Amino acid sequence: MSKMYRNPSAGSLNTNESFISENKKSDIVLPNQSDNIAHIAVDIGGSLAKVVWFSKQSQGGRLSFSKFETAKIDQCIGFLQGLLTERGDTPVRIKATGGGSHKYYDLFREKLGVAVQKEDEMECLIYGLNFLVRQIAYEVFTYDERRPEPMQYENNSQELFPYMLVNIGSGVSIIKVTSDETYERISGTSLGGGTLWGLLGLLTDAKDYDEMLAMSKLGDNKNVDMLVGDIYGGDYSKIGLKSTTIASSFGKVIKVPPAERKSKFAQEDISASLLYLVSNNIGQIAYLNAQAHGIQRIYFSGFFISGHPITMNTLSYAIAFWSKGKIKAQFLRHEGYLGAVGAFLRDPPTYARLNSFTENFSSIEKNIITAVGSLEEYPTELKQFPLLLDPKSYNPDTTVLTERHLHSYWIDLLDANLKSLVDIATEKNEDALARAEMFEKMYRHHLSELKTNPNAYGTLSVRSLLNLREQCLREMGFNDIFSKIKQKENSQALFGFSLLTSSLDKLSGEALVDELISNILAGNMYDWGAADIQEMIKKGELDFKVAQSKIGYDPKFYNISKFRERLLTEPPYKKCMIFVDNSGADLIFGILPFVRYLVSRGTEVVIAANEQPSVNDITVGELGDILEQISKIDLIIEKAYKSELLTFVSTGNASPCIDLDRVSEEVVSACTDVDLVIIEGMGRAIHTNYYAKLSVDTVKVAVFKNPQVAAELGAKMYDALFKYEEAPPY
Amino acid sequence: MSKMYRNPSAGSLNTNESFISENKKSDIVLPNQSDNIAHIAVDIGGSLAKVVWFSKQSQGGRLSFSKFETAKIDQCIGFLQGLLTERGDTPVRIKATGGGSHKYYDLFREKLGVAVQKEDEMECLIYGLNFLVRQIAYEVFTYDERRPEPMQYENNSQELFPYMLVNIGSGVSIIKVTSDETYERISGTSLGGGTLWGLLGLLTDAKDYDEMLAMSKLGDNKNVDMLVGDIYGGDYSKIGLKSTTIASSFGKVIKVPPAERKSKFAQEDISASLLYLVSNNIGQIAYLNAQAHGIQRIYFSGFFISGHPITMNTLSYAIAFWSKGKIKAQFLRHEGYLGAVGAFLRDPPTYARLNSFTENFSSIEKNIITAVGSLEEYPTELKQFPLLLDPKSYNPDTTVLTERHLHSYWIDLLDANLKSLVDIATEKNEDALARAEMFEKMYRHHLSELKTNPNAYGTLSVRSLLNLREQCLREMGFNDIFSKIKQKENSQALFGFSLLTSSLDKLSGEALVDELISNILAGNMYDWGAADIQEMIKKGELDFKVAQSKIGYDPKFYNISKFRERLLTEPPYKKCMIFVDNSGADLIFGILPFVRYLVSRGTEVVIAANEQPSVNDITVGELGDILEQISKIDLIIEKAYKSELLTFVSTGNASPCIDLDRVSEEVVSACTDVDLVIIEGMGRAIHTNYYAKLSVDTVKVAVFKNPQVAAELGAKMYDALFKYEEAPPY
Repeated sequence: MSKMYRNPSAGSLNTNESFISENKKSDIVLPNQSDNIAHIAVDIGGSLAKVVWFSKQSQGGRLSFSKFETAKIDQCIGFLQGLLTERGDTPVRIKATGGGSHKYYDLFREKLGVAVQKEDEMECLIYGLNFLVRQIAYEVFTYDERRPEPMQYENNSQELFPYMLVNIGSGVSIIKVTSDETYERISGTSLGGGTLWGLLGLLTDAKDYDEMLAMSKLGDNKNVDMLVGDIYGGDYSKIGLKSTTIASSFGKVIKVPPAERKSKFAQEDISASLLYLVSNNIGQIAYLNAQAHGIQRIYFSGFFISGHPITMNTLSYAIAFWSKGKIKAQFLRHEGYLGAVGAFLRDPPTYARLNSFTENFSSIEKNIITAVGSLEEYPTELKQFPLLLDPKSYNPDTTVLTERHLHSYWIDLLDANLKSLVDIATEKNEDALARAEMFEKMYRHHLSELKTNPNAYGTLSVRSLLNLREQCLREMGFNDIFSKIKQKENSQALFGFSLLTSSLDKLSGEALVDELISNILAGNMYDWGAADIQEMIKKGELDFKVAQSKIGYDPKFYNISKFRERLLTEPPYKKCMIFVDNSGADLIFGILPFVRYLVSRGTEVVIAANEQPSVNDITVGELGDILEQISKIDLIIEKAYKSELLTFVSTGNASPCIDLDRVSEEVVSACTDVDLVIIEGMGRAIHTNYYAKLSVDTVKVAVFKNPQVAAELGAKMYDALFKYEEAPPY
Repeated sequence: MSKMYRNPSAGSLNTNESFISENKKSDIVLPNQSDNIAHIAVDIGGSLAKVVWFSKQSQGGRLSFSKFETAKIDQCIGFLQGLLTERGDTPVRIKATGGGSHKYYDLFREKLGVAVQKEDEMECLIYGLNFLVRQIAYEVFTYDERRPEPMQYENNSQELFPYMLVNIGSGVSIIKVTSDETYERISGTSLGGGTLWGLLGLLTDAKDYDEMLAMSKLGDNKNVDMLVGDIYGGDYSKIGLKSTTIASSFGKVIKVPPAERKSKFAQEDISASLLYLVSNNIGQIAYLNAQAHGIQRIYFSGFFISGHPITMNTLSYAIAFWSKGKIKAQFLRHEGYLGAVGAFLRDPPTYARLNSFTENFSSIEKNIITAVGSLEEYPTELKQFPLLLDPKSYNPDTTVLTERHLHSYWIDLLDANLKSLVDIATEKNEDALARAEMFEKMYRHHLSELKTNPNAYGTLSVRSLLNLREQCLREMGFNDIFSKIKQKENSQALFGFSLLTSSLDKLSGEALVDELISNILAGNMYDWGAADIQEMIKKGELDFKVAQSKIGYDPKFYNISKFRERLLTEPPYKKCMIFVDNSGADLIFGILPFVRYLVSRGTEVVIAANEQPSVNDITVGELGDILEQISKIDLIIEKAYKSELLTFVSTGNASPCIDLDRVSEEVVSACTDVDLVIIEGMGRAIHTNYYAKLSVDTVKVAVFKNPQVAAELGAKMYDALFKYEEAPPY
C-alpha cells in the first residue's frame, strides 16, 4: 500500500502501515506498491466499512484489505479517492454491499464521481466465504484455550455444504447455505457487535473497540456476574450446572447500593462480563439454529470477533457445551471481509485468475491473534499435484512448530541470519541499503509477532517462515538478492561439468549409480539457505570433495540398494520428474549428471524449478539458460533437450519448500506418464513432503543441514537423506 | 395480613397493605386476618425471596403471598419471625427452595429456630405450575397489544403436557415437562432479570426494578438501537426484515462521541432498549428450544415479567415472530410464585383440600396489569357440574366486559351502589362504621384498578365484580350484611305462604302452571342486588302484585308453552335440581310453591342454595330453617321433606352468580337421576349460564333488572326470562 492512499484510521492495525510510516524515505520506490487499481468493493456495515481493492502488479494481481469506522465514513471516502487518483483515467466501478451501501450510495457516487453498483449483502457474504474457504490456505480454524496451542487450522478439503454462517457485525445474521446457489437467512439477533460496543461505550472510558477488548482481557467477569456457585454454594449437579457457570450476567450489580456501584465494579470486569454475555448468547442461538436445521458446521464471521481470544473461546465453548462436544465453532482469518470479497467476486476483472491466489503476509492487517495478508494472484493457476496418493490427507509440512521451543528456535535462527542476508542484498548500494534496513525491520517485526502468536499467519512451519521472508524481500523490492552469487556459482560449475561427466563415463553399473547419488548429495551441500553452510561458502572452506567428505551415511536415512537394483535390473523408468533445489554445484554437479544418465537410458525427464527466486534456488529462467549452455558442450544433454526428452517446467512457486497442493498447471500437465518423482533438497524433501506419499516411485534426497530438524527426525548434521519409496501396488 | 407481620418492602405492591396501613384503627379486629399459620414455604432466588404461607381460617384455609429483595434478606427473616410468633408453640416447618435456600439455610435455621427443609428448585417450579394452571381460574393468559384488550385468559381445560416452562429469575431456566413426574432442564441463559436489573442499575438512576420498568415505559428504544431502517433506509424485504426491526441493540451509541453520550442517550430510552433486548432474546431462545423439542406450549414465569406490558408484548412478539404465529407465549398471574407454591405443595397440611382453592382478591399483590390474590380453601371440594353438555367449552359468563363502555358501566354502577350497601352494613354500629368505611375504600380502590386494567383479576365480568364485592365485605368482617333484612322478608313471606297455596290449590292444569311460573317471576323481582329494585323496596313501593304487574312478557325471552306441555302431557320428571336466588318472596312465594307442585306429582326435588351469604340470596342454612318452618304448616312439603323427596344442598358458592365449573361435591352427588335443572335469578341465569347447555331439560328463569344486560341481550327492563331447553337426544 503506498503512502498516497493510506488508511488513516487503521494505523494501529496494519503492521506494514505503521512500519512504513516509521521508516519510509520519501524517495524510495517500492515496486509492488505502485498499484494499478482495477476494481474496488466496499462492504458498509452498521459499525465498520470494509474495503477490498484489486491492483494489477508486475506479476499477477493483488487483492488488498482495509477497514474504517462507518461513523467516520469521510475517511473511507478519502481513502477511496486516493485509490481512484492512482487509477488515472481508466473507468472504474465500485461494488458496494452491506446495509450502509444503501445509505451512503449517493454520497459515494457524488464524492467519488464513479458508478457504484449495489450487491445483495447476504449473497456477498456467502460468495466471499465460499471463495476464501476453498482458495485460501489456513483460512479456517478452531479455537480452544484448553489446548496447548489454542488455534488449530482446519483442513479445507472437505465438502463445504451444508454449513451455517453466523455473521456478527453490529447485529447478527444466521444464514443456512446448502449449495453455491442456495441459501436462507434462518435467524439473527440484535445482540451483536454494536451491542457490545454500544454498552461498553456507555459503561467504560475506552475510546475504541480495540481498547474495549484489551480492557476485557484484564477484567474478571465473576466480580459482576452471578455464578451458579454464588447462588447454590457449589454445582447444581442435578441439572448439570457447574458452580462456575454464569447464572445471571450482571447479577451482582443490584446487590451493591447505587452510590457504591461506580467504585465497586471495575470497567475491566464490566467489559469481560459484557463480552461473555454477547459471545455466549450468540453461541447459544447459533447452536440452537444449527440443531433445528441439522447442520454440523458453523462458521463465525464479522469484525465482532476480531480474532479476540476470549470472544472465540466463549463462542467455541458455547457451541461445544450445547452440542455436547459434537460441533466445533469454526473461525475465519478474513472474518470481517467476506462481504467485501464477495462483492468483488460478483464482477471481477476478466484477467484475474480467481483460483490462483496465495496470501502475502508482508503487510498484514493485524487482529489480535490472527493476521490477514493481501491475496496475490499467481501467473498460473495453482493446482494440486496429481500424483499424491491420498490427496485429502496430504499435509506438506513435516514439523508443525506448535511447541514453544521449536518455533522459538526457528524464529531465533532466522532472526540471527537476517544480518548476513541484508549484507548480501545491499552490496553497498545506497538505495538498497535503505530498503534492506526496512526489510530487516519488517521481517523482524513479523518474527516477533509470531513468537507471541505462532499461528497468526496460518500453521507455523519452516516453510511458512521461509515464505514470509521471501515475501518481505520482494515487498521491499528485492526480487533476487542471490542473483550475482547464483550467476558466479553456475558459471564455475559449468566450467567443471565436462570434467565431471568424462570421469563418470568411465564408470558403469552399481559404481556409476553410487557415484551419481553421491554427487547429488555433495551438490546439495551448496545451500545458502543453511546458516552453517553459508559460513563455509563465504570463508571458501567448501569444495566439492570437502562437501562429499562431510556427509554421513546413516542406514536409517540412506539406503540406495533398492533404487540401484530397480535402475539396474528392470526396464528404465518411462518418465521422471525432478523437483530441483540450489543453483551451482547442486544442479550442475549433482542433478544434471543424473538426468544425463536417465535420458541416456531413454527415460523422459522433466525438471521442475521455482517460478520466482528464493535464496540461491535455481529459477526456471536460470535453468533454461543452463540447459542451453550445457547443450553446447554435452551431446547427450543436447540430444535429449532438442528432442524434448529433457524438458523443464515452472513449479509456480517461489520458496525453498514446496506445497504439493499448489503447483503450476505446467507441472500438472507434465505429470502424464511420470513413473518416478525425485524431490531434492532440505526444504522440499525434509521440511516439507518428508512424509508425503505419491502414487508413483519416489526418491527424496537431501542433506540434513539444520541441527534442529536433524535432531527432530533422529539424524545428525550432514547426514544424507536418500529415501526410495516404491509406488503402492494397484 | 395483620400488622404484626407486614412485609416492610412490599408496601407499594400490596394494595391491601397500603390500604390497611392508611386506614387502620388499632382496635379493629378483622376476623379473617387473625391467621393461624400452619405452613410456610420460601423460594429464595438470586434477586427476590418469595414467601407463601398457609393459615387456618374460620372457614377453610388461606394461602398468602409476599416477596422481598434477596439483598434485604433480613426483612424476609423479620417477616417470617412475625409469622412464627403468631403461630405460638405448635411446631412448624419451613420449606425452602430456590438457589438461595442453600446459601441462607443456616441463617434461616439460626434466626428462626425452626427446621428448614430444602426442596429441589426445578421440581418445585413444575409442581407449582401444574397446580396453579389446573386449580386457579384465570391463571394463564396471552398478551398482545395489537388486540383491543391485550390480555386474554386461556382455557385451562386442555391437556397440560407437554409444555415448556421458561422461568425468568435473575437467570433463565428452560424446562421441558412431559408429565407430572417427568421433566428436563433443556436450556437456559444468563441473560435474565438480573441482567436487565444490573445493567439498568449501572446505566440509570432508578432506585428499584419497578422504577426501571416505569422508566422504560417512557422511553423510545429507537433513539439507542440501530433499526433495520437506519441501516438499509427501509425494509430489507428480500430476507424478511422490516425497517422497524432492531438490527443492533445499542447500535447507535457508538456513533456519538463519548463525551456527548451521557446527554444524548436518555435513561428512559436506554431502559426501553435493554428491556427489549433481554425480552426479545429470551423469547428467541425459548422458541428455538420449543422448536428443537417439538413443543407447542410455552409458559413464561418469574418476577422478571412482573406483568409488565412491554416485557410480555415483546416475549409474545418474539414467540409469534419466530414461530410464524404458530405458538403463543403464555403468562401466569402467579408468575413469580411457582417455586414457593411448589415447595408448599411438597408437604401440605393434611387437612388442606388442594383442589378446592378459590382466589380472594380483597387483598392483592399488584403487579402492573395483573393482580395476585390469596388462595382460599373452600369447606368442600369444588368440582365441575356433571350435567354440562360440553364440559370443555363451558364458559359461565354471558358477557365478558372487554369493551370499555361495558366495564365502565358496571364499575360505575357498583361504585354508585356502594354507599347504600355501607348504610345497610353499618346500622349505626360504631365498630361496623369504621370497618364499613374501610370496605368502601377497599372496594372502590379495586374498582378504580379495574377501570385501568379490566382483566387484572381474571376476565372481567359481572360475576367477578360481584364476587370481589363479597370478598371485600367478608375481609372487613361483614359476613352477612343482609342478615336482618333477609330474616324480616322471610318471616313476612312465611306469613303469607298458606294464603298463597290455598289460592293456588283452586287452580289446575295450564292455569296452575301459568300461575306458578308467574309467581316465580314476580318473586324474582325482590332482589336487593338490583339497584332500581333496592330503591323500590326501601321506599315500600313493591308488593307482590305490583311486582307481577311490572313484568313484561316478550315472546323472545318468555315462552312457557313447551314446558307447560311437557309438565302436563308427559310423565312427571324424575328428579329436579333448582338453583335458587333471593330469600323472602322469591324463595317462598315463587320457588317453594312450584317445588310443592313438583313433589305433589312425585318428582324428587333438590334445592341448591349458596354456602355463604351474598346480598339477600338465601343461604343453605337459612333454607333449612325455612323448610323446617313450612313443614309445620304445609302437609305436602312436610311429607316430601320428611321422606327426603325434597332435599337441599349447598352449592359451595358465595355469589349471586354461579360458575358450574366449581360446585360442591354435594351438588355433584345430588345430580344422579336429575332430568330437570332449574336455574333461577339474574345472576345465575342471565349474567352467567345464559348460554350454558346441559345434558338434561333445563329452565332458566329470571327477570331482567339491569338496563345494560337487558339491552345487551335485546330485552327491556323487567322483561321476564323463561327459557326452556330440552335435553338433546342421545
